Amino acid sequence: MSWVSGSNAALLTDLYELTMAASYHRRGMNGAATFDLFVRDLPPRRNFLVVCGLDQALEYLETMSFDADALSYLESLEMFDAAFLDHLSGFEFRGDVWAMAEGELAFAREPIVSVTAPLIEAQIVETFLLNCITFQTMVASKAARVSIASGPRDFSDFSLRRDHGADAGLKAARAAFVGGAASTSNVLAGRFFGIPVSGTMAHSYVMAFESESEAFRAYARDFPDRAVLLIDTFDVVQGAQRAVEVARELQPEGVNLAGVRIDSGDLAGLTRRVRAILDEAGLSDTQIILSGDLDEYRIASLISDGVPVDLFGVGTQLGTSADSPYLGGVYKLVEDQHGPKIKLSTGKVTLPGRKQVHRFIRDDQIQHDVISLREEEFEGSHPLMRQVMKSGERMGEREALADMQQRCLGAIEKLPPYLKKLENDGSYKVDLSVKLEALATEVGRALRVSHSS
Amino acid sequence: MSWVSGSNAALLTDLYELTMAASYHRRGMNGAATFDLFVRDLPPRRNFLVVCGLDQALEYLETMSFDADALSYLESLEMFDAAFLDHLSGFEFRGDVWAMAEGELAFAREPIVSVTAPLIEAQIVETFLLNCITFQTMVASKAARVSIASGPRDFSDFSLRRDHGADAGLKAARAAFVGGAASTSNVLAGRFFGIPVSGTMAHSYVMAFESESEAFRAYARDFPDRAVLLIDTFDVVQGAQRAVEVARELQPEGVNLAGVRIDSGDLAGLTRRVRAILDEAGLSDTQIILSGDLDEYRIASLISDGVPVDLFGVGTQLGTSADSPYLGGVYKLVEDQHGPKIKLSTGKVTLPGRKQVHRFIRDDQIQHDVISLREEEFEGSHPLMRQVMKSGERMGEREALADMQQRCLGAIEKLPPYLKKLENDGSYKVDLSVKLEALATEVGRALRVSHSS
Repeated sequence: MSWVSGSNAALLTDLYELTMAASYHRRGMNGAATFDLFVRDLPPRRNFLVVCGLDQALEYLETMSFDADALSYLESLEMFDAAFLDHLSGFEFRGDVWAMAEGELAFAREPIVSVTAPLIEAQIVETFLLNCITFQTMVASKAARVSIASGPRDFSDFSLRRDHGADAGLKAARAAFVGGAASTSNVLAGRFFGIPVSGTMAHSYVMAFESESEAFRAYARDFPDRAVLLIDTFDVVQGAQRAVEVARELQPEGVNLAGVRIDSGDLAGLTRRVRAILDEAGLSDTQIILSGDLDEYRIASLISDGVPVDLFGVGTQLGTSADSPYLGGVYKLVEDQHGPKIKLSTGKVTLPGRKQVHRFIRDDQIQHDVISLREEEFEGSHPLMRQVMKSGERMGEREALADMQQRCLGAIEKLPPYLKKLENDGSYKVDLSVKLEALATEVGRALRVSHSS
Repeated sequence: MSWVSGSNAALLTDLYELTMAASYHRRGMNGAATFDLFVRDLPPRRNFLVVCGLDQALEYLETMSFDADALSYLESLEMFDAAFLDHLSGFEFRGDVWAMAEGELAFAREPIVSVTAPLIEAQIVETFLLNCITFQTMVASKAARVSIASGPRDFSDFSLRRDHGADAGLKAARAAFVGGAASTSNVLAGRFFGIPVSGTMAHSYVMAFESESEAFRAYARDFPDRAVLLIDTFDVVQGAQRAVEVARELQPEGVNLAGVRIDSGDLAGLTRRVRAILDEAGLSDTQIILSGDLDEYRIASLISDGVPVDLFGVGTQLGTSADSPYLGGVYKLVEDQHGPKIKLSTGKVTLPGRKQVHRFIRDDQIQHDVISLREEEFEGSHPLMRQVMKSGERMGEREALADMQQRCLGAIEKLPPYLKKLENDGSYKVDLSVKLEALATEVGRALRVSHSS
């Protein structure tokens, strides 16, 4: 069941994590350090992020290790001394992790995950944590937009064939579900995560039979309660008529035509004509499923045009978040044994210290967040980060995916209207607490002084 | 070593592949069928594709199977009858595969992979083949553009942290190398594929020391022959001066400063100032490495401005192909036991029959391609597809990654200038042979007649 952990995952890191770690090791620099994983700016066309990927990140932290094969490869690079390789051979992550829950909404600059561990451990896990958290957060955030656009209609993740590899297919299905998808076409994601799986038929199925009607007849007989017939292999209107004929013919056998799918052409116009054909035939319960390069923008447009669609299959645009295909997550040192740290590079300033994020809600709408030092409390708000790992041990039960989805849907309901728009129309207010602001100023000033000396 | 195969990969498919297969199985429809994997139109800003991912695709075909766990999950869905599940329990891929070689250039409509197998086998493998081939082809194609922009300068894949999951990280490193990258930061990709690994240091390393100079001193001592110092944590010019001081100070110890890296700010202006500082100090062999959201456009602009850069680290934009983040590969039935097949859906017409692609080269430049029926031959051209699998067995040796890279670099050299541009300036000519054209017309006409009846 474990597909992203163990010794392979330990090497799934940038070489510089290991060279830096070797250098720290040689100097005995292994005091506690805290790194924050966050996003500096929201990507284009995103008003919020949906946190996702924590469970896999924790699984990695629990299980990663360097086995003999990994160590022998590292040795072959002739860059690492024996003492460091020996250190790696006994390596395990023993740190503490604080994080926002999966399905929670996050905004720019807010720590999503915060790792406190001996410096070498905290450093080596950087690359994997970024890879794991930012991809799923990107897809869950995209899914939440599709969910907002779809309104009460369900949508299904059809992205596997266009996802970036096998792991992306699994994680995209998971993140899409957390962000609001009702199901996935990805069978392995169904197996691993318990996500409902759904599917229809491909054009090749229709083509494999002597005629479209024969294909429809066969499929409807084989899946009498759940057949969805793909009607655009030749001509959509004729396809709909044939689907109706087959449904009528097989009704005595107990066949209930669940739906028809349209995957090409003028979806709005064709859906109206097909709906009319189905309704005239008394098949008003037969659903119309649309697919074919859909995204939240096309879905919103179809719905605002009053197109009588029941369900969307969303593939490529969802699984690759194509209009914003990466999330610039960073993982920054914010504190070490000498105290809070800050970075001053152009455009890349960080916030020092161990932190907490507080959300203020009024009249069932989120009002603003405050990023503070970890121990601060604010009346009228609730903290978003909780400790999820202590000394390398996961705290509490693994959360069910359905609970993450509920959290996300609940959080979306509390979004003010301007943040639910598909375009940008103002940014959510994220303040720094007075204490954090003061600390940032103080650490920054001290750094500039020491640096210019 | 096997990371995308076996029983898990068998379930990494769309549910509809299995429902269609079950339906075929119930009817004994399992005659030989041929499916072509191709791209209908080149994506925006792409003048050619670099074929990549075949080796993993063949590994999947060789090893996929449904184990007891997979079968028990499928049974739990209550959609499949016992006879079909029994069929899957003995399932193995026994088909033939023809394909273009990895590193070869492909254009729109050209079959990249062609699978001939019993219908059920050919259908079930669709999703994985698309997922595997299109992602790597997309990244290799992007890498080739970076390679063209970089000219004689090397570039390294830094994408792991922003790739879409673990498998994407590995495959992106592999595909980037095939497309021309000199190295990768991804250690596991080095371990699996033998790609040279490279890396420098992060800002957190500099911040973990009392001062920038101390950090530089430590790293240069630890990696005396290969230290690349990151000089933009505080101020790039001051960072360069400190790097020079440390290099001078440690020269007696045998330290040779390999390079400095700049990751933020005005890269063009800063690189010039840093080059001058290094040269004045007699460090003319010390390289300048640039990184920070680079892509082929920024690289081309830096080089055309004469910026004295030696090496590029390219991350996010390479591994996610961010300006064109998916490749619309399709896998279409083109022939079955009843003969050549065609699809007529709006905008989705396919070419019937088993095919070959011929490339005409004159004066060391590619002139045009011809897609033909498989058995056709054309003087003055060479065929691009070769048989790589027979009855489920791989033919010939696994090819070395370096050979694929050489093939790609050689093919790029033969590109006419208009195809080497980063923008679109005309399309490469891909013709159909007279026989293929005639077959397409004939099959299309027959289909329209039978369909309208």
